[in-house]
Amino acid sequence: GKPIAHIYPNSETPVKALDPRAAALDTFERRHMGPSEKDQLEMLKTIGFESLDELVTSTVPANIRLEEPMELGSHTSAAMSETEALSLLRSMADKNKVLKSLIGQGYNETHTPYVILRNMLENPGWYTAYTPYQAEISQGRLEMLLNYQTLVTELTGMEMANASLLDEATAAAEAMSMCVALSKNGKKKGAMTFFADAQCHPQTIAVVKTRCEALGIDVVVGDATSADLGDACIGVLWQYPNTRGDVVGDAAGVSARAHDAGALSVVAADPLALTLLPAPGTFGADICVGSMQRYGVPMGFGGPHAAYMATSEKYARRMPGRIIGETVEANERKGRALRMAMQTREQHIRRDKATSNICTAQALLANMAAAYAIYHGPDGLQDIARRCLGLAKAASSALNKAGIQASEPAFDTIVVKCDSASIAEKAEKAGFNLRVFGPDEVGLSFGETVTREDLVSILEDVFGVDAGDVDALADTSSVKGRNNLLPHAVFNTHKSESQMLRYLKQLEDKDLALNHSMISLGSCTMKLNATAEMIPVTWPEFSDVHPFAPREQTDGYVEMIASLNADLCKITGFDAVSVQPNSGASGEYAGLLAIRAYQQSIGEGHRNVCLIPVSAHGTNPASAVMAGLKCVIVKSDDDGNIDLEDFKAKAEKHKDNLSAIMVTYPSTYGVFEETITDLTRITHECGGQVYMDGANLNAQCGLTSPGTCGADVCHLNMHKTFCIPHGGGGPGVGAIGVNAHLAPFLPGHTVTAVDASTGDSRGSESAVAAAPYGSSLILPISWMYIKMLGAQGLARASAIAILNANYMAKRLEDAYSVLFRGANGQCAHEFIIDLREFKKAGVVEEDVAKRLQDYGFHSPTMSWPVPGTLMIEPTESEDRAELDRFCDALLAIRAEIKDVEDGAVKLEDSPLHHAPHTMDDVVTDDWDRAYSRETAAFPLPYVKDSKFWPTVGRVDNVHGDRHLICTCPPVSVYEE
Amino acid sequence: GKPIAHIYPNSETPVKALDPRAAALDTFERRHMGPSEKDQLEMLKTIGFESLDELVTSTVPANIRLEEPMELGSHTSAAMSETEALSLLRSMADKNKVLKSLIGQGYNETHTPYVILRNMLENPGWYTAYTPYQAEISQGRLEMLLNYQTLVTELTGMEMANASLLDEATAAAEAMSMCVALSKNGKKKGAMTFFADAQCHPQTIAVVKTRCEALGIDVVVGDATSADLGDACIGVLWQYPNTRGDVVGDAAGVSARAHDAGALSVVAADPLALTLLPAPGTFGADICVGSMQRYGVPMGFGGPHAAYMATSEKYARRMPGRIIGETVEANERKGRALRMAMQTREQHIRRDKATSNICTAQALLANMAAAYAIYHGPDGLQDIARRCLGLAKAASSALNKAGIQASEPAFDTIVVKCDSASIAEKAEKAGFNLRVFGPDEVGLSFGETVTREDLVSILEDVFGVDAGDVDALADTSSVKGRNNLLPHAVFNTHKSESQMLRYLKQLEDKDLALNHSMISLGSCTMKLNATAEMIPVTWPEFSDVHPFAPREQTDGYVEMIASLNADLCKITGFDAVSVQPNSGASGEYAGLLAIRAYQQSIGEGHRNVCLIPVSAHGTNPASAVMAGLKCVIVKSDDDGNIDLEDFKAKAEKHKDNLSAIMVTYPSTYGVFEETITDLTRITHECGGQVYMDGANLNAQCGLTSPGTCGADVCHLNMHKTFCIPHGGGGPGVGAIGVNAHLAPFLPGHTVTAVDASTGDSRGSESAVAAAPYGSSLILPISWMYIKMLGAQGLARASAIAILNANYMAKRLEDAYSVLFRGANGQCAHEFIIDLREFKKAGVVEEDVAKRLQDYGFHSPTMSWPVPGTLMIEPTESEDRAELDRFCDALLAIRAEIKDVEDGAVKLEDSPLHHAPHTMDDVVTDDWDRAYSRETAAFPLPYVKDSKFWPTVGRVDNVHGDRHLICTCPPVSVYEE
Repeated sequence: GKPIAHIYPNSETPVKALDPRAAALDTFERRHMGPSEKDQLEMLKTIGFESLDELVTSTVPANIRLEEPMELGSHTSAAMSETEALSLLRSMADKNKVLKSLIGQGYNETHTPYVILRNMLENPGWYTAYTPYQAEISQGRLEMLLNYQTLVTELTGMEMANASLLDEATAAAEAMSMCVALSKNGKKKGAMTFFADAQCHPQTIAVVKTRCEALGIDVVVGDATSADLGDACIGVLWQYPNTRGDVVGDAAGVSARAHDAGALSVVAADPLALTLLPAPGTFGADICVGSMQRYGVPMGFGGPHAAYMATSEKYARRMPGRIIGETVEANERKGRALRMAMQTREQHIRRDKATSNICTAQALLANMAAAYAIYHGPDGLQDIARRCLGLAKAASSALNKAGIQASEPAFDTIVVKCDSASIAEKAEKAGFNLRVFGPDEVGLSFGETVTREDLVSILEDVFGVDAGDVDALADTSSVKGRNNLLPHAVFNTHKSESQMLRYLKQLEDKDLALNHSMISLGSCTMKLNATAEMIPVTWPEFSDVHPFAPREQTDGYVEMIASLNADLCKITGFDAVSVQPNSGASGEYAGLLAIRAYQQSIGEGHRNVCLIPVSAHGTNPASAVMAGLKCVIVKSDDDGNIDLEDFKAKAEKHKDNLSAIMVTYPSTYGVFEETITDLTRITHECGGQVYMDGANLNAQCGLTSPGTCGADVCHLNMHKTFCIPHGGGGPGVGAIGVNAHLAPFLPGHTVTAVDASTGDSRGSESAVAAAPYGSSLILPISWMYIKMLGAQGLARASAIAILNANYMAKRLEDAYSVLFRGANGQCAHEFIIDLREFKKAGVVEEDVAKRLQDYGFHSPTMSWPVPGTLMIEPTESEDRAELDRFCDALLAIRAEIKDVEDGAVKLEDSPLHHAPHTMDDVVTDDWDRAYSRETAAFPLPYVKDSKFWPTVGRVDNVHGDRHLICTCPPVSVYEE
Repeated sequence: GKPIAHIYPNSETPVKALDPRAAALDTFERRHMGPSEKDQLEMLKTIGFESLDELVTSTVPANIRLEEPMELGSHTSAAMSETEALSLLRSMADKNKVLKSLIGQGYNETHTPYVILRNMLENPGWYTAYTPYQAEISQGRLEMLLNYQTLVTELTGMEMANASLLDEATAAAEAMSMCVALSKNGKKKGAMTFFADAQCHPQTIAVVKTRCEALGIDVVVGDATSADLGDACIGVLWQYPNTRGDVVGDAAGVSARAHDAGALSVVAADPLALTLLPAPGTFGADICVGSMQRYGVPMGFGGPHAAYMATSEKYARRMPGRIIGETVEANERKGRALRMAMQTREQHIRRDKATSNICTAQALLANMAAAYAIYHGPDGLQDIARRCLGLAKAASSALNKAGIQASEPAFDTIVVKCDSASIAEKAEKAGFNLRVFGPDEVGLSFGETVTREDLVSILEDVFGVDAGDVDALADTSSVKGRNNLLPHAVFNTHKSESQMLRYLKQLEDKDLALNHSMISLGSCTMKLNATAEMIPVTWPEFSDVHPFAPREQTDGYVEMIASLNADLCKITGFDAVSVQPNSGASGEYAGLLAIRAYQQSIGEGHRNVCLIPVSAHGTNPASAVMAGLKCVIVKSDDDGNIDLEDFKAKAEKHKDNLSAIMVTYPSTYGVFEETITDLTRITHECGGQVYMDGANLNAQCGLTSPGTCGADVCHLNMHKTFCIPHGGGGPGVGAIGVNAHLAPFLPGHTVTAVDASTGDSRGSESAVAAAPYGSSLILPISWMYIKMLGAQGLARASAIAILNANYMAKRLEDAYSVLFRGANGQCAHEFIIDLREFKKAGVVEEDVAKRLQDYGFHSPTMSWPVPGTLMIEPTESEDRAELDRFCDALLAIRAEIKDVEDGAVKLEDSPLHHAPHTMDDVVTDDWDRAYSRETAAFPLPYVKDSKFWPTVGRVDNVHGDRHLICTCPPVSVYEE
């Protein structure tokens, strides 16, 4: 490995970001990077380097360093200006044809209320927040997520709901996993079958099949009202209303049959239909899942949307995903506070014993759905539902009257007997997409946006029948709908736009997001989510496309995804990419499935051991288990590196059955381990494949790559390295890159083929998400980022991320022990400070994390991967002044700790012990603390400039889990 | 007048907002109105009515009540759903053809940085704020406006600047007015001339001419470098660079010639050119004006944009418009605080003696311009300027080389000798608009968005010449630009997008806007600015159109404006409308000019007396003076009505010279005066015209109308009644409606004819604004509002506005004296509470206003129209709970006043005296107040739910005016 000398064309004279000639000036790099070039040089000096090249050469091991500048795989490797990139993307968007969709099948057009569009989806206050682990500065989105859970429990009639899953299909698969643990037949631990009603959405059945196959569970597809379920059935999945729009006559009977067979009844239900139809909780459902997309979230060619899951309280501990719960403040006030409950179920704690590998949720989209329900209220939702039903009834009546056989709708969907090819063609000409069920049937789903004129046009122009008095035909005033739906105050208060705007603002103000200060969460890469990247997300040409729209209408999407994937191939050093996995964990799972399928294809399907370093993300072992693998843990040495001897021994030992090793790089300890190539070589020698966890890819781009390190597959957290905002806890995208031999085993899709130009795939097999390209709507964000930085800019981003981390480590190292550094003394893009030594004085990591809130900062990652530590990842987007403020805060906190250590201040008299401090705390008349109110609230001068107030005191975690309350407070019932 | 019975189809059974059949459900009315129908009925009962119809019948005098339901003038009178209205508007927008503009002439394409677009222009936190009269809860936009003033002073090299004017042309006219007061020749009070260089932008000369004509000042157009200025010249206006792109050789010479002649030198300068060229302050400019549009504000077919004005400190008191200045807190802390300085210059104080009638500014746009400068910094601005120069140089070189004569650019503009018709046609074909100077010349102005490819296309496709190496031709690296430009920290700190985002957010958080709570400013109508109304403002088809684009490219705009005007005619009961006036005051002026021109046309040009009630807005007399009228004040009686006897007497007395009466209706006291028809009749009998001030039109729509009342002309504050957001102090639109006989005298335009379909006009004469349709870009807001409410919805909006006001008056009347009510005991849409009786206890209106901030509310209008009172206007958009919270706050404050009155609490011990309370106040360690910190900060329980903190204590007004500081604090100079 030569010293790297290509981050700047010439490391002595940094390129000027602006060219004072004809080139465009709205360049992005200088907006994305935090430190100015001048600051970069000074910071480099502080840590003992002359240039970024020198820093990188010293930090990235020689054997994996890229010797030649990276190039991109599509268009140009040079950076495009903001305008150039948006113009190019616009030209692609214009290639999508946006027809009005009546396809249904789980995706419906919806009006996103503009007040929600602008003030949530387009508002950095909502979309740049992190997952609400720091409850005290997250009460806004916690409240909205509690609203969401309340909405779901009310709609489904179940006792509790989680705070969203990735999509309806994966939610069904998660429900299937719950059946393994919870059903009578599942507990027998013998061979198992899972029954799926044939009238479920096909994409749901496909994803469940993928999941079952890896676990050795047979999926039986048939008629849930009549089939013999056998004696090994763990669950019955059925759709309500089903994919043809029908509702089974005896719903309770289906559940009863499942229960009688020792299985659970899993209902996939449309949440808008549930405002009219009886709730699944009333007919024996054990688990209820579905998509909240039609609650105001654009279809976006398949995602992201929130899927819901609801179940009984007795199954709570087996429910995957995040659950928001009520608790009290830990202080004497004991005020009500919200937090994420029962985290001990989750993969980051339980690892291979976890309920699921689920980590990312769809918080932003769940919050939008909750806001939609609040804005419309129970009456408004029922009016919308009744109207959908009315349109479907009117269509059915008019068609039947004209002698065309159409089904009687249970809700919004009818199936019509006709020559489907010719009708679909006429529909397309008239501006509509229908669902084609085969040569003789089409389906029509009437969503919120279908107009009276649309209905007339469908009847007259498409079917050639007389529309008649559609208003009379569509009259549903006699349809009652469910009684006493959503009586909670929040769903009956914010009806005017002013009220809604203020409620959204009130919640937003409670949450600390990237628009306030840096969020230096190690392993989470909370970098700038630039506005230019967000602009295309709400272009109708991207947002209003149905995932199963005819292929010839989606050229723009396919071109954009093909371009993105080609670039990602270059960045990762791989041959093919799939963007289908809609979370990092889903990417892990998809990558491991690809490995397994490859090994099966070469007759090595018996390989089932997965080596996982002890320091791995909890998702790694959880995903391995889902892929049917057995986890074997590899130790770390004292320097935080993988213990190569232990690794070698275990690889040798499991040689015959070794499927894969899962390795994070740079390591989860924030170190570029020198031994990475040994590790990949040995794994291959033992017949295994190398799965690289791409969580830390932000340290690699343009400097090295997973492919260069010898990995076979890697998932990319697009919401970390590639700028998709964290949304307050999702969405995420976990694209995976693979070497050529694995490319044929990338996820396919059963409804719409994955276009060859976007990467290879398994045809109609092995879908891991409901939509062929997963959360397509947010891929333009990553595309814009890559195009606006260009290849060199990406390399500089990684180098500056490393610079920022090392600069902070330098500033902090005299006050805190900085754990784990690379061979030449540098950390990678993140580093760990050790707080364990303060424990003897009684100060614990939570005290530091909460005290940081008083200083206006979100805590770095706490106690992971090492208990009793903080892991700090600044990213390249933070400027020097912000890094300095954060270091100043940590140094001031260190002095507060020292006061306790020295005995100058008793622990219970220290602000650390009482942090964070709320307005209530410091405004109270009876202040009896040993320190001043000003010390509590304004511990450093900069804090006053833009004080951020935690809205509740430190939350009581134990209380919350002991007294689980996961819905809005019970209210007296509102009567009309 | 029959009792009104058409606000609801049937007043017994209110129409349901939702129709559960085929009709669209995204209806707007239920989102715009605050109180639900149930609340409306309960509130009606509280004030003694059964229905809105009954309330209206009792409130609006019978002789002016509309007997038949109002209809709209375009499309349908029925309400459109949000989607329907946006679709119709989109179909209009699509009729605009957006070509790249090289027209220049004061308007240039610019990149609005996306972070500014989303977080200012599209963010209700910025756009719904009011003018920062309440300084303590407005420090964010005050800081940005101070940045703006600093930017302007630095660019111009002048000592001080105001916080924006309406457009460059009106700014030049304001400068002319200053010359009257300040020049030697002006002080002589004899006949005056004003000299305008012939190479000023033609629209500027036109507006100055209109203004001069009314004042009897001759405008002489000629060559400022050589013309004989005579001995009556008050000012010389010249453009820098001039409208042909040239810079005069001896700039100081032009100023010297003006000074020698006893005139002032008024320079209209391009602020981007000023980053390279010498500042006007260095060559003797006395007043400098210009447009900040190209600092990131979309062209928008002519506006809104901020115009700047800068001058010497010695002229400060004669400078029109708002001026932001530094002061200190009035408390012992004496912290730095910002406020609006020298308000005593302004029309609301000085009335007919005011410097100008200017009231509305362009705060939102000025703030965007400042943010643009902060984001780019001095280096970035100079890079942009150099690039514009480079492109112009390259074009000139390539053309001259090919034998086509092109001028050498001083900055961004060249003039090319050619067959202009044929070249313009080729340009249009290639996608460009050029400026046509006559048959033999075109102008090309190279703005920020022109790309290298554009330049090549212009040279090759349009002029048919070889482009050559455009980068080399465009090289301006040797051009130095001005030294040490903008050294202040704020212009050298926020360069990354994260930094910019956080700075914008930090400022936004300091300001109370409509997204927090109601702003019940009497006479200002701070109603909902709905998101659906704001959406089209940032459609490129509206935002990217040059005001002088060829007429055949602007069909969409013209259609939308014609539709808006047709509706406004029906709403006002008039025959024609002009939207050109870009503020309410400008509308007054335009309306009075129309009256005068009409009177001249019928041989009654001598009529020059204007009757104005004592209670009129200060703009009324100021506008009358500008229109060349003499003001005669009419008294009020004790009930707040116009004293009809006094009126009659004065009308009779001035019968022969009576030009007009200016009357606000309902009156500025918030009363539907019964005598309005007497007033209009008598005026007409005395040969005068009735000018109605439309500030209170929100009480009239669909219930009565200016036309019905007998007015001849009325201006409509579109930023009040018709939902254009106040923007923190502008933009505004002051459309005027007139009867048929006045229609031919509406403002015309000298560059682009006002399209006949939008209303009649004076052809090329009497422009009152720079662009033919004024602030066209924000007209879609009003269009959407009218279309989404429909005729009945507009009537209900007025009725509910009246209901809300009367409900509040009822809740408050036992605690406060409510002044002035109508004949049957109702107020109109606003009411006045009297605080004068508390003065004997030492409590003044400011104490109440500031204490309201502690309760989370913006004060109502203070001491206007009656000193020592508050005037409260809730608007129809506020819901009952919000009205109740506000009333609760005022009642709690009344109890605090009573404590002082009773002697239970000494005045200086009362929270009233120390209000507002900041974080600093209540967190301080040495609290020595007689009341608790909680009383200070959380005086009622609801306050805690979303506490809004004033960021500074009560400001010291006297100190601020005595120690005038109107720019950012001086800083040590930053060196590269």
